Amino acid sequence: MKYHYQSMQAPHLIIIGGGFAGVELIKKLNNKPIKVTVLDKNNYFNFQPLMYQVASGGLGPDAIAYPLRKIISKMPNIAFRMAEVLEVKTDTKEVVTNIGSYTYDYLCLATGAQTNFFGNAELEKHSMQLKSIPDALDLRSDILQEFEKALSQNGSGNLDRILNFVVVGGGPTGVETAGALAEIKKNVLPADYRELDAGKMQVHLIEAAPRLLAAMSEISSTKAKQFLEELGVQVQLNTSVQNYDSITGNLSLSNGTVLQTDTIIWSAGVKGKTITGIPPALIMRGNRYKVNEYNQLDGYENIFAVGDIAYMTSDKAFPNGHPMVGTVAQQQGVLMGKNILKLLRKEPMKPYTYLNLGSMATVGRHKAVFEIFGIKMQGYIAWLGWMFLHLMLLVGFRNRLVVLMNWMWNYVSYQRAIRIITRPFLGKNN
Amino acid sequence: MKYHYQSMQAPHLIIIGGGFAGVELIKKLNNKPIKVTVLDKNNYFNFQPLMYQVASGGLGPDAIAYPLRKIISKMPNIAFRMAEVLEVKTDTKEVVTNIGSYTYDYLCLATGAQTNFFGNAELEKHSMQLKSIPDALDLRSDILQEFEKALSQNGSGNLDRILNFVVVGGGPTGVETAGALAEIKKNVLPADYRELDAGKMQVHLIEAAPRLLAAMSEISSTKAKQFLEELGVQVQLNTSVQNYDSITGNLSLSNGTVLQTDTIIWSAGVKGKTITGIPPALIMRGNRYKVNEYNQLDGYENIFAVGDIAYMTSDKAFPNGHPMVGTVAQQQGVLMGKNILKLLRKEPMKPYTYLNLGSMATVGRHKAVFEIFGIKMQGYIAWLGWMFLHLMLLVGFRNRLVVLMNWMWNYVSYQRAIRIITRPFLGKNN
Repeated sequence: MKYHYQSMQAPHLIIIGGGFAGVELIKKLNNKPIKVTVLDKNNYFNFQPLMYQVASGGLGPDAIAYPLRKIISKMPNIAFRMAEVLEVKTDTKEVVTNIGSYTYDYLCLATGAQTNFFGNAELEKHSMQLKSIPDALDLRSDILQEFEKALSQNGSGNLDRILNFVVVGGGPTGVETAGALAEIKKNVLPADYRELDAGKMQVHLIEAAPRLLAAMSEISSTKAKQFLEELGVQVQLNTSVQNYDSITGNLSLSNGTVLQTDTIIWSAGVKGKTITGIPPALIMRGNRYKVNEYNQLDGYENIFAVGDIAYMTSDKAFPNGHPMVGTVAQQQGVLMGKNILKLLRKEPMKPYTYLNLGSMATVGRHKAVFEIFGIKMQGYIAWLGWMFLHLMLLVGFRNRLVVLMNWMWNYVSYQRAIRIITRPFLGKNN
Repeated sequence: MKYHYQSMQAPHLIIIGGGFAGVELIKKLNNKPIKVTVLDKNNYFNFQPLMYQVASGGLGPDAIAYPLRKIISKMPNIAFRMAEVLEVKTDTKEVVTNIGSYTYDYLCLATGAQTNFFGNAELEKHSMQLKSIPDALDLRSDILQEFEKALSQNGSGNLDRILNFVVVGGGPTGVETAGALAEIKKNVLPADYRELDAGKMQVHLIEAAPRLLAAMSEISSTKAKQFLEELGVQVQLNTSVQNYDSITGNLSLSNGTVLQTDTIIWSAGVKGKTITGIPPALIMRGNRYKVNEYNQLDGYENIFAVGDIAYMTSDKAFPNGHPMVGTVAQQQGVLMGKNILKLLRKEPMKPYTYLNLGSMATVGRHKAVFEIFGIKMQGYIAWLGWMFLHLMLLVGFRNRLVVLMNWMWNYVSYQRAIRIITRPFLGKNN
């Protein structure tokens, strides 16, 4: 049986967002009696967990981005539109975008999350982020441009400030980014910038909680910190960032320390990406929308929210909502696919409970922490496991091949091969 | 014997530009008694001949860009500075850049060429170019955005205008770009945009001369045209572009035809990139500097110009200057390396004569024209030869491997894998 998007008579579902949740949902609805339109402002899915490797020059963007049109190319009932959503009108069941309006019978909010600066405008203006491919390319260029700037000072100037890299937030992204920077200091800087004293480069990791990787066990936190320190990263726990003065480069920490830096990489938190038109009263903690156990938006049978943007309190183990991670998004996408088909058939839906598969983070060569299916490992084997699982989780055979090839190359050469600055010359904060 | 850039007492050569000429010159001067500083506004060498494949989604930028610092990483007497040259002061022997001034004993101008719009400001403003990696990424995004735009019209709007792609200039870049667009029409459009009528997409190639690939023989020109037409490209010879109205989308041709298009890709000519401070009286035809048979700038013993920027009339076979191609640049770079060492040793220098190795261009799958060392081939074998030689000409083993892997992938899948739009949303002409 084949459905055809343009001619089929069926309820119309619009999915806003082609991330982990949206993509799993699409896959479940392939060739089913529902007409599906996916809207995203980018024409690709991006594999967020490896974003920091694009930022640190180990991978190109094409290794972690996968065209959304390629994903749906064999799905007859599903269409994609590259569009920026401006507003949802729930009364007329309309999604207003920059390329026109679309009416829906069912709507899925799968917008994901954005960086949370917790209201600090100065830090928001001057920090680098790691949420999108342009972010990652910008950070890659920035890191290399700091090195170039350090060289062009000819020994004068404030080298400490230029070569101080401060990563804020000790979750997986922060830990992995700090580790990658430390390996750049160790392997790339001496080879590429032999006129610079590599010792001048400092990598700081600032975490407000008493330990890194709060979602993992104590042993993983301790080991991750140990691995980072072995690589020369200066880890400060129980410490938060107070404010930043971009003129002097002074970053003030809660423990009274002042770091001089030009480069702050902010991975200290995320918040849901809300949409104009959805009642603000439904916005809960973490800027997420209140949903019931079936991911239905509170008070709406025909609107769902899945992934980072969904705030569900019905799951007993997670009374304050689920962690904002890819696994939850994927599971909710899959379940929503099943549930909306049940809804159409007027069968009872299944409630969501999080199956926590675990978590992992890599610090550097042979150094990772791994807790999956209750198996806890650290070090070399964990590092192999981390690589294997990330390869499996990537979308598409080509991307797996590209990532594997780049990893092998970087492993053998001790380098980050893609050390090219592609943003406009002298781009910082312009 | 080892020299060390920072401590060596030796004449100082500044090379402006890390392209084909600059890179060959650097290689010749590795570990020689001369202190060399390379200036470039990008931190990478880019392999221009494959730029069109980045624009058409077949390769990522990291496949054709190679970090300049990697090239010099084992060259003790050579340093790189990422800098934009603002002015040369020949009286004080200074190069003024955005990051400070550098004094030289010898200077090499290897700035290369830029797109020549022959003074047509409207076309310059609205055409896409293919001279740099940002150009190529911009064109890749643009092509895909035109398809997205066509879809979002929902059948209304001027589809012809949106899906008309006009390539101006029938040299290798124009021929290869038009061929790549035709293959996108044939293989990518039906798979990714099944709601669009692929037949609506038109590819035009406009050439002012009576034949394509003027640098090659008649048979290659004829075959290239035949290959393009087999792929559905509409080739117009003896035709030049008159003007473009960006409001109506009307592109007027010299033969009276008016094409409606949103996308003009300009590959109709190049001109040298001159530098402030070099006497304008030395600028000749093609915006190139007058040099003697040793590539010395007319009237200066210590300033050389090599590659596209050099206008040499002493070579008997080329009284109007050499073609502005990579081979000339490489040969002049190599020879200048030898000659400046002779100059330092007060030995006589060798004059340059162009050894024309030939030329080649690929139109599409199994379709290429090839004239190297007097061997003329067309079709399948030419296409294999084209690929083999381009792989050999690439800098670095990693880039060869990445290109080869992508070619194999694209060959097997009939696709251009990297169909991702990375420029800012709705970027055109903003």
